[in-house]
Amino acid sequence: MSEMGIKRTELADLGEFGVIKRLTSNITISNMTSIKGVGDDAAVIERNKTEHTLLSTDMLVEGVHFDLGYVPLKHLGYKAVVVNVSDICAMNGQAEQITVSLALSNRFSMEAIEELYEGMIMACDHYNVDLVGGDTTSSSSGLVISISVLGSVPVDRVTYRNTAKEKDLLVVTGDLGAAYMGLQILEREKSVFEEAPTVQPDLAGHDYILARQLRPEARQDVVQALTDLDLIPTSMIDISDGLASELFHLTTQSNLGCMLYEAKIPIDESTYNAARDFDLDPTLCALSGGEDYELLFTISAEEYSKVENNPLFTTIGYMTDKEHGQQMTTKDGQVFPLEAQGWQHLKSSAASSDE
Amino acid sequence: MSEMGIKRTELADLGEFGVIKRLTSNITISNMTSIKGVGDDAAVIERNKTEHTLLSTDMLVEGVHFDLGYVPLKHLGYKAVVVNVSDICAMNGQAEQITVSLALSNRFSMEAIEELYEGMIMACDHYNVDLVGGDTTSSSSGLVISISVLGSVPVDRVTYRNTAKEKDLLVVTGDLGAAYMGLQILEREKSVFEEAPTVQPDLAGHDYILARQLRPEARQDVVQALTDLDLIPTSMIDISDGLASELFHLTTQSNLGCMLYEAKIPIDESTYNAARDFDLDPTLCALSGGEDYELLFTISAEEYSKVENNPLFTTIGYMTDKEHGQQMTTKDGQVFPLEAQGWQHLKSSAASSDE
Repeated sequence: MSEMGIKRTELADLGEFGVIKRLTSNITISNMTSIKGVGDDAAVIERNKTEHTLLSTDMLVEGVHFDLGYVPLKHLGYKAVVVNVSDICAMNGQAEQITVSLALSNRFSMEAIEELYEGMIMACDHYNVDLVGGDTTSSSSGLVISISVLGSVPVDRVTYRNTAKEKDLLVVTGDLGAAYMGLQILEREKSVFEEAPTVQPDLAGHDYILARQLRPEARQDVVQALTDLDLIPTSMIDISDGLASELFHLTTQSNLGCMLYEAKIPIDESTYNAARDFDLDPTLCALSGGEDYELLFTISAEEYSKVENNPLFTTIGYMTDKEHGQQMTTKDGQVFPLEAQGWQHLKSSAASSDE
Repeated sequence: MSEMGIKRTELADLGEFGVIKRLTSNITISNMTSIKGVGDDAAVIERNKTEHTLLSTDMLVEGVHFDLGYVPLKHLGYKAVVVNVSDICAMNGQAEQITVSLALSNRFSMEAIEELYEGMIMACDHYNVDLVGGDTTSSSSGLVISISVLGSVPVDRVTYRNTAKEKDLLVVTGDLGAAYMGLQILEREKSVFEEAPTVQPDLAGHDYILARQLRPEARQDVVQALTDLDLIPTSMIDISDGLASELFHLTTQSNLGCMLYEAKIPIDESTYNAARDFDLDPTLCALSGGEDYELLFTISAEEYSKVENNPLFTTIGYMTDKEHGQQMTTKDGQVFPLEAQGWQHLKSSAASSDE
């Protein structure tokens, strides 16, 4: 086999971002219509004078991204579309079309695949997205779902990761950490079930965090709200891998640092309580949990009045110069480098990342 | 698990096209920019007044579409791009951007993945396509490659599958069956190797058919030639699953039948000889072999002079009314329904199909 070369560098040694960096370092773009290639939530492609086309793709692999032991296929289909729509939202755009490729083993029945599709079509209806094509193939092992999404964004509203400015305010939508705590509940109940199959799962009181894990939504409403507010973020990213990881992308790609205020991070009460039950630090869950699909963006300080009292938004910090690094002021007023808060140790459960 | 419903229809009972038909039967398109959804080589999306955007996707699964026992990773990467570019050619368009999603297990080294990427980037350079994004994820088992491609086509040149007219001529590019025979050689040598690892593989004299299997090309040159000839096919499809299967798509989607002349089917001498060595009917290999990535199209009879003496093209038959069905006139002058020639039995090795 051709992978048996002389030199062998293990993928695990490089880590996910290391692998992506090495693979994409030699890539150049030459087509006149390619405006932005790898390195953001979606590629940006010339469409016409008023709009750009956006293109993004995400792959979900059974056993890596989802466990059919507790994820219903309909929810999985819905979420697979949401993850892609969210990438278009992160560019300040509107998703319009998707293609769906599936690798299926014959342990799935036609009815099972129809459930998966039903979830995808529900999401398409909800986000006004058309399913326009795909590929269906057999698989010798698990289920693989690969979705690509096309979207559009007005030329003057496209928002990248690498264009934040020093002193810009850091703003986040919704609340964080809930999807991660939902996953903890599901995994706990799965373990209980495996040990004692007759015990009913104890999911009571966790509706919100379970819904955040099983049926997240992409913030297309936020993209519309930004338009209505006549507010164009200076940079934006969606929170798929946890706040800390996304802050890392925004700051390094914009060549800046940041100051984050722990006390400002929006965490729902049910997330907070569940974290405490699991002996986890709620802040760490928000920083590193992932799968929230909220939007993190920066705005010029002059625009603050547009987000100040809007329940969609929470201002959680500001951008600094690069030398300052990524820092967090804790609730008791201490300042730490974000790395030291442990987010390198408690890694997100999500094993994939956009390039 | 949610697939354990009361009714269980096996995917194998429906067959690939049956599965796709059932999944796509409820799909409607509602976005104003979606011109053509599922059912052709690529979706067609509004771009601007002069051009449409094309979008297609293909998934390649280890153990289903390729065997790393004899396919070098660089060739695999090249071919994975070609398969997608070919779908854009089949719409009479030009590929412009791709995204690449990979599911990788840790048995691959960084160097192995770089070889795969090198092949993809070689193909991108060759076809003037930009790699603009993707997703890299871990896999618990084999390698999965999912590529999506964006392209463009002048509004007045877009060519669908379902627009052939009765009496149109059937034209094919290049020659057929070679990729299938290349695969037979590779599989034979793999068996020999497994039984006697010290025996050198006997690939001599099979350069052409091996290259057709391992490193096919998409017929972007044909799309250019059609433009130069001022010729717009009345319908077109690429030959990924074998001539018979693609004829089936063109005729049923255009609500027509066809008459194919066996003697006209272009088969290279080396394909012919290899088929004879394997005791296979060369015509059957061309009809059912697949993976040729040639183009099959129809033209109005008045345009015949444009293809008549052009070495790129071979006229192999004509379209008839629907009642006539899909027929073939054999070399000895007999007329058979195409199905009776056995192409339903000798199915292509490729287990996937565009929707």
